[in-house]
Amino acid sequence: MHVVVNAAMSADGKLSTRERTQLAISGEPDFERVDRLRAESDAVAVGVGTVLADDPSLTVKSSSLRANRVDAGRAVNPARIVADSRARTPADAIVLDDAAETYVLVSEAAPVERRSALAERGATLVTAGEERVDLLRAFATLQDEGLEAVMVEGGGELIFSLFDTGLVDELSVFVGPQIVGGREAPTLADGEGFVEAFPTLSLSDVEQVGDGVVLTWTVDR
Amino acid sequence: MHVVVNAAMSADGKLSTRERTQLAISGEPDFERVDRLRAESDAVAVGVGTVLADDPSLTVKSSSLRANRVDAGRAVNPARIVADSRARTPADAIVLDDAAETYVLVSEAAPVERRSALAERGATLVTAGEERVDLLRAFATLQDEGLEAVMVEGGGELIFSLFDTGLVDELSVFVGPQIVGGREAPTLADGEGFVEAFPTLSLSDVEQVGDGVVLTWTVDR
Repeated sequence: MHVVVNAAMSADGKLSTRERTQLAISGEPDFERVDRLRAESDAVAVGVGTVLADDPSLTVKSSSLRANRVDAGRAVNPARIVADSRARTPADAIVLDDAAETYVLVSEAAPVERRSALAERGATLVTAGEERVDLLRAFATLQDEGLEAVMVEGGGELIFSLFDTGLVDELSVFVGPQIVGGREAPTLADGEGFVEAFPTLSLSDVEQVGDGVVLTWTVDR
Repeated sequence: MHVVVNAAMSADGKLSTRERTQLAISGEPDFERVDRLRAESDAVAVGVGTVLADDPSLTVKSSSLRANRVDAGRAVNPARIVADSRARTPADAIVLDDAAETYVLVSEAAPVERRSALAERGATLVTAGEERVDLLRAFATLQDEGLEAVMVEGGGELIFSLFDTGLVDELSVFVGPQIVGGREAPTLADGEGFVEAFPTLSLSDVEQVGDGVVLTWTVDR
């Protein structure tokens, strides 16, 4: 399995404002780059916080990229993965529509009625971990399901947890031309944070895209 | 007056860990770049949080750069500025030594005995603002003192406040090859954060330095 984290942050490392309102950090040239990355992926993963804040579709926007997938014998859209320890994904969330297969990763602490509601909406539930999703086990299950190329689109809690479990292979960040600020604004990697044994990276590419820069890093082993 | 913010952040936008331990984000090539920037400045500014956490000297490290300054008729080191609303800078802080002139910006809420202690150590006090330093007024006073080229080295609270008051002209950020993570770790711009009217930037330079990248932005007016 190859896990690529792809996100857009402000010049000061924020994914959105302290009010968690969605923010256009990047522009059209970066949207197109992200769409191509999605089209190349077997699955696109987000944390439930992103589902609750933004209600994204996570589908491929370009009709020609979708057609290319179908021509190659793939599903029209990559699968969707939601890391959702307590099964809080709303039943009417767009990620549960029929545009793509959707996996919801839950812990044993997720209420049974919430799990049933998600299963009824067609989601495939992957249960791993007691209070929080055990990402290592859940991603192993996803790999068994044939998902090899996984793109992670946020938010900062999921991204931190994936670095913490050593699952990230590559990080691609659009750094945008604005200052968001805020002690409590979500950042690229939130969670508890590291105080030692920081994951280290090697810069593999720097590219100006629109009004910002895309930094691509590979994670050192 | 020309205000340049210069800082080093991890790939996820952190200045240090949640424990605020000093972190070597950049390496020798960036230290040399920062030393040259200091040597070109009339003053180097930090917030009191940085003084309390790191006890920096803020002096020019290179003897040849110091000699160049003296040859040009300047002080051997740039002046130091500490934004310190409550006058919490310890009397034995390195920024109060005699290696350079030091301005401490305080508010009217700073205890008189703390102000006296700092004045006794040779600091020049600039009082502006009731509860918090009024940076606009304080920086106007500094400009009257002849400080034109000011470099700001952090931390995230001061940097946010300077963006908030519209004082920043340029932002130069070393983005380093590590993930720090942490909801509570200090970021490049903390404070309350913006929720609208975000300061916008234009990318003026991208340079690989050591294992990271220096992004230089000018602040749009």
